[in-house]
Amino acid sequence: MISSSKTRLEECTVEVLIRPYTPADWPILWPVLETTFAQGDTYAFPTDWTAEETQKAWIVVPLATFVAVSEDNQLVGTYYIKANQMGNGAHTANCGYVVPAAFAGQGIATRLCKHSQQEARRLGFLAMQFNFVVATNTRAVALWQHLGFQIVGTVPRAFQHPQHGLVAAYVMHKWLADPPQQP
Amino acid sequence: MISSSKTRLEECTVEVLIRPYTPADWPILWPVLETTFAQGDTYAFPTDWTAEETQKAWIVVPLATFVAVSEDNQLVGTYYIKANQMGNGAHTANCGYVVPAAFAGQGIATRLCKHSQQEARRLGFLAMQFNFVVATNTRAVALWQHLGFQIVGTVPRAFQHPQHGLVAAYVMHKWLADPPQQP
Repeated sequence: MISSSKTRLEECTVEVLIRPYTPADWPILWPVLETTFAQGDTYAFPTDWTAEETQKAWIVVPLATFVAVSEDNQLVGTYYIKANQMGNGAHTANCGYVVPAAFAGQGIATRLCKHSQQEARRLGFLAMQFNFVVATNTRAVALWQHLGFQIVGTVPRAFQHPQHGLVAAYVMHKWLADPPQQP
Repeated sequence: MISSSKTRLEECTVEVLIRPYTPADWPILWPVLETTFAQGDTYAFPTDWTAEETQKAWIVVPLATFVAVSEDNQLVGTYYIKANQMGNGAHTANCGYVVPAAFAGQGIATRLCKHSQQEARRLGFLAMQFNFVVATNTRAVALWQHLGFQIVGTVPRAFQHPQHGLVAAYVMHKWLADPPQQP
């Protein structure tokens, strides 16, 4: 999923470098995540999460976390990647993306998602799944569809949106291995 | 989801007591869970999980865990209940169920699932969701449908079944609050 509602379906218009997260990024990353999750309209995370809890979810638990930085070294995005399930379901990756509102609409989420798909393949994943794309986050839904993801499930009344009340959440999926296998 | 492939869609034919798990149950519960997960055909858990890892997933992380015991005090089933998401998705419960193969086909899973729905309502949940019902587990799928769950998503090739290869997994959902709300 993606946090910004302003993202356009276009290529990235700013020069960004996507690189692995390092602990030195945390003082800049934490306020970005804190602000995003506190809004409570895109992620099913507690809106009052502490730095420690957020770090656990975004940094510690995932296999890897990346940050996107601009030419003038501003943090303009981040994503994590992990296995969506364990055991015999571990071949499907799961990612979460955040772009600060100030940098929305510049194609950064597109860059992050494309990067994450490459990273997923490199790590040996065969597919990628988003479990909980809030239906009102229409820009994110359209962006993921534009990047090859399909809505494979619709969970009714899954999310208590702070403005819209109970809204659906989508399960979205893309097969990454080549060629797609049947069924 | 449910571990047994033999469960019939019938009412429970044995007298069972469903009660909260206590630590004294672990020496009996652990081999049941170990055997179930080692088969690797119903749950996306590591097939070689340790007792500690299994206990964390089945006992520590969930809100509550229950066991079903027969009149002669045998452990004939277990389930956990927890929130399926955090934050603004925390109104939907998630459960996992296991019935030992020796006690399959006696309606115990039905009892467990009905009990878990009552428990979910008591805990204030508005709905229940199963994220990963392996499509080849047709008895479980039919049982959950019989108990009012709907398939709201189908994730293709989500599970590497030890006999059948890559098979789909269903997302199943039931609204528990009364009356069902729209949309």
